[in-house]
Amino acid sequence: MVKQVEIVLPAMGRGYHLITHKVLEAIGELPRTGIMNVFIKHTSAGLTINENADPSVRTDFETFMNDLVPEDYPHFTHTLEGSDDMPAHLKSSIIGQSVSIPITEHRLNLGTWQGIYLCEFRNHGGRRKIVITVYGE
Amino acid sequence: MVKQVEIVLPAMGRGYHLITHKVLEAIGELPRTGIMNVFIKHTSAGLTINENADPSVRTDFETFMNDLVPEDYPHFTHTLEGSDDMPAHLKSSIIGQSVSIPITEHRLNLGTWQGIYLCEFRNHGGRRKIVITVYGE
Amino acid sequence: MVKQVEIVLPAMGRGYHLITHKVLEAIGELPRTGIMNVFIKHTSAGLTINENADPSVRTDFETFMNDLVPEDYPHFTHTLEGSDDMPAHLKSSIIGQSVSIPITEHRLNLGTWQGIYLCEFRNHGGRRKIVITVYGE
Repeated sequence: MVKQVEIVLPAMGRGYHLITHKVLEAIGELPRTGIMNVFIKHTSAGLTINENADPSVRTDFETFMNDLVPEDYPHFTHTLEGSDDMPAHLKSSIIGQSVSIPITEHRLNLGTWQGIYLCEFRNHGGRRKIVITVYGE
Repeated sequence: MVKQVEIVLPAMGRGYHLITHKVLEAIGELPRTGIMNVFIKHTSAGLTINENADPSVRTDFETFMNDLVPEDYPHFTHTLEGSDDMPAHLKSSIIGQSVSIPITEHRLNLGTWQGIYLCEFRNHGGRRKIVITVYGE
Repeated sequence: MVKQVEIVLPAMGRGYHLITHKVLEAIGELPRTGIMNVFIKHTSAGLTINENADPSVRTDFETFMNDLVPEDYPHFTHTLEGSDDMPAHLKSSIIGQSVSIPITEHRLNLGTWQGIYLCEFRNHGGRRKIVITVYGE
């Protein structure tokens, strides 16, 4: 079976946000065994999996990734949409735009400390569209 | 249904190249609902999704990634195949070697500005093999 | 068909380890055509695909990634679990926590030089759980 839903997430602040519960609510019942793919339809945001408990991890992601891909990098030429735009494109490809997670016994088979992050790389990214696809049997 | 094709892309210059149309041409008709996985069979090239319009984004990818993983990094030991080889391996794992994209109503469900990039990290990478797999119903 | 197995890998040293053969042993027979997803249930380790021959590539991964995400980065706030913890979280999202590989004629369709790496980012990460899911027909 294949099941798919596209949802629009409300605008979130620049940073890293846990969305596991929103993804699960949106897709509903899962097959016994399979894969869930979550895909973000934007080039200045990302999806990844990381620590779901201590929020200091998400704060440090924001600080470190801003240093790794600095807005004042002097050689950017794609600057018309603001100084946060080209860094957002790069972070999006470094972090990735989809995650694929196993489904086992009708549940996401994440590790104890794993959650899905929506990574908002723009200052004012607005609403974000994601597509959730599950397949299995 | 599962459908798969392996194609060989002609040698492209070092840099980031839009290949969405080539991928779609190669695979042909898509299922109504599902996933397309595109995989590159090399360790010194990559695949990602990013901005499909302004080519300055692709130029800035090349400039920035070369600074992030510099060819003159003094601690590389794997140097026999040239100064562009070990940086290419690292970029390949940082950017990734496959993308998984939802299929909706027989079409790739990409965002308006998203396209598939082949990332050629070698100076003379030659032809590159990719495998396109779609599954769904 | 969908087939899935979860395995526990013994503790490995900090660094990059080829696990292709262990993954194949664990999952057994593959469908004729499809995809294999391998997923690691941890936020301080990763999975990627890279060069399967010369071990100097894996050494250089360890050296370079430690410089890219340094343990003495002065702005980390998530430091209670040791100086190797927050860098491990970041590397995990930069490198990724799953790989999806095409299956062709009952075999993994990897390139000649490609192998699956388990990336152990902690000094004492302990045993690691991975989930292998194959689907196809």
